[in-house]
Amino acid sequence: MTALEIQGKAARAASRRLAVCSTQEKNAALLAIARALNSQKDRILAANDRDMKNAVDSGMSRAMQDRLALTPERIDGIVEGVRQVVALPDPIGEAVSMLKRPNGLTIAQVRVPLGVIAMIYESRPNVTVDSAVLCLKSGNAVILRGGKEAFESNKVLVDIMREAIAESGLPADCISLVQDTSRESATELMRLHQYVDLLIPRGGAGLIRSVVENATVPVIETGVGNCHIYVDDSADLDMAVNIVRNAKCSRPSVCNAVETLLVSRSVAGSFLPMLKPRLDEYNVELRGDDETAAILGSVVVPASEEDWDTEYGDYILAIKIVSGIDEAMEHIAKYGTGHSEAIITSDYANSQRFLQEVAAAAVYVNASTRFTDGGEFGLGAEIGISTQKMHARGPMGLRELTSSKYIIYGSGQIR
Amino acid sequence: MTALEIQGKAARAASRRLAVCSTQEKNAALLAIARALNSQKDRILAANDRDMKNAVDSGMSRAMQDRLALTPERIDGIVEGVRQVVALPDPIGEAVSMLKRPNGLTIAQVRVPLGVIAMIYESRPNVTVDSAVLCLKSGNAVILRGGKEAFESNKVLVDIMREAIAESGLPADCISLVQDTSRESATELMRLHQYVDLLIPRGGAGLIRSVVENATVPVIETGVGNCHIYVDDSADLDMAVNIVRNAKCSRPSVCNAVETLLVSRSVAGSFLPMLKPRLDEYNVELRGDDETAAILGSVVVPASEEDWDTEYGDYILAIKIVSGIDEAMEHIAKYGTGHSEAIITSDYANSQRFLQEVAAAAVYVNASTRFTDGGEFGLGAEIGISTQKMHARGPMGLRELTSSKYIIYGSGQIR
Repeated sequence: MTALEIQGKAARAASRRLAVCSTQEKNAALLAIARALNSQKDRILAANDRDMKNAVDSGMSRAMQDRLALTPERIDGIVEGVRQVVALPDPIGEAVSMLKRPNGLTIAQVRVPLGVIAMIYESRPNVTVDSAVLCLKSGNAVILRGGKEAFESNKVLVDIMREAIAESGLPADCISLVQDTSRESATELMRLHQYVDLLIPRGGAGLIRSVVENATVPVIETGVGNCHIYVDDSADLDMAVNIVRNAKCSRPSVCNAVETLLVSRSVAGSFLPMLKPRLDEYNVELRGDDETAAILGSVVVPASEEDWDTEYGDYILAIKIVSGIDEAMEHIAKYGTGHSEAIITSDYANSQRFLQEVAAAAVYVNASTRFTDGGEFGLGAEIGISTQKMHARGPMGLRELTSSKYIIYGSGQIR
Repeated sequence: MTALEIQGKAARAASRRLAVCSTQEKNAALLAIARALNSQKDRILAANDRDMKNAVDSGMSRAMQDRLALTPERIDGIVEGVRQVVALPDPIGEAVSMLKRPNGLTIAQVRVPLGVIAMIYESRPNVTVDSAVLCLKSGNAVILRGGKEAFESNKVLVDIMREAIAESGLPADCISLVQDTSRESATELMRLHQYVDLLIPRGGAGLIRSVVENATVPVIETGVGNCHIYVDDSADLDMAVNIVRNAKCSRPSVCNAVETLLVSRSVAGSFLPMLKPRLDEYNVELRGDDETAAILGSVVVPASEEDWDTEYGDYILAIKIVSGIDEAMEHIAKYGTGHSEAIITSDYANSQRFLQEVAAAAVYVNASTRFTDGGEFGLGAEIGISTQKMHARGPMGLRELTSSKYIIYGSGQIR
């Protein structure tokens, strides 16, 4: 057996124990984790320092360094996140349906854990704790495979969590970290179908593609967001300016930020000059088609085919003038990644068409795409945003980390 | 583009149209299919005759021939099945949840079609029509890839359905048949992720394994059922005899039939001699461990390790004596395929433990495993029985053929 197979087998065994835990036992383990992370800040910060030194030495970008860095305040935030998960209702045991059949059989469909969940992700150490506690609360063992840039931080965070849950009486192997951060270990994890019930990759388009190509375990694709806002003929233009500015500038690095703005030709001449000064406050680079340049002038960088396909994650906005809702929906169907799409309109029929015909996890009328988030949707927390159609679509909370089974109470029935 | 890519692209285009169809339009197409199948029985029977001649020539087994054969009565049954699907409620548009957030956003999670569903299956021509109409009703285009033994029958059935839906105004490409029945076409279909949203394989363990190994499209594994009944110390032995006989003999070829009987040592001496004469009525072959042979005599064929792993699909029952519920559940965890498992008991604590701890799509107390079926569970119809944990587990009806999306009604909200 390889090291990863041994780890998988241990996770499987731990998941059996976890599946029959009471909510009280799971919450006690989560509170133990919160206390341990809180009291061992120095140990965490020292490990994170080692990662940060390597990052500086290897010339990591400022933005990436910011994602990797931990501070006492950020650890407080992580601890607070764990406490919030304690407060969420336990989805396990909840009945999806229950009915009594004419033959007297009582048939209930109840939520059960998936079993063992594997996560492959990149450099943010907070994902390590967030993912582990959501899996634990939903009764699943988790195998974490973070990026090598964050290995020292992840190792200490996982060690602390394992110690805490073992003290609270649950198996330490409910949470484990893949010690090998090579590309080979990721590929092996994608094919560990004997022990992994679900793989959730969180990262860029390259990671997601590699997972789709190589995985033999069930996968939920997450997070690639090439999001659009379409400003319709009848849009309230002040509202449109506010929404586009918010969707682009409030946090451009996240997956629900807007990347391409589609504007109906009939309002482009009045709308774009209203929008530009509000984006200038954030120095947003504009990449537009010829018509956009004709309206806004030479400050517009000419957009290429590649721009329509790009999730910038930055203060850059692509702009295209379209003939109306049909061309806008065609563009979204061609370039969208099925994450979040919005129309700004006052027209009832167009709002209904957009909601029905646009295929995405979240489709908005007159609101910012930035709301696609487990907290904003009332799920309490999220482990990622699914952009696929099977099992879960959109923000994934605790329920999305469960399966179901039918339990049937009989009194001798035969068929 | 390959022939299959062209077919996939056409199915994708048809699925867009189908996704925005009203229930009335879909039901009209289904009724047109029912009428056309009913009025073209001769054409169907002639095609089936060609398949049956090939089957006889190639030395197909009697049991397989029976699965392949169509008769006027069987076609009546297929037509009646289509009419039943018309009567089922349309899952599309149904809200899974809807709430108003503190900021005034109304967020609804509604059911939408998956898109394009591919089916790979073996020799039964009725699966062709059953699958196509369930996909159509749930708003999905379907690509059917049946076995080569049934190709002539499948081709005529699909031609008739395509003609009927085109006449009713929907795109014929909502339903299509893969014309190439080679192994290569199946493998290509498993990797057509640009056009296929879900692949459902229906067939033996070999097909399922090949799909898990080769597919890059999302898959729902179905149908492999190595099912167990455990007769507990406190079981009502008359009830246990009836249930075991029903689960083995009422239809041994199906996936919810029992394959291995586990008997607690404390009741084996009284139970097995009660059971045997009732199984003898069906000439059931018994394959048991040494203790079973000691009780029932030399008629028991010695069971090997392989027997515990086998889905016989035949009048054969494996029998093992166990020390009690723990050994029974260990055996099921090791050899079960997660389909249907039953305990026969009068003990409350054991019934609860079995329901909670056994991991399977359907877990029974005091009833036959044969009830695991969409109709018996009140789903109206089924396209297969999922033995995996993601997306759907157990009998899959119309709802299990849907995805969801969030639609959000705003009035200018920003975050």
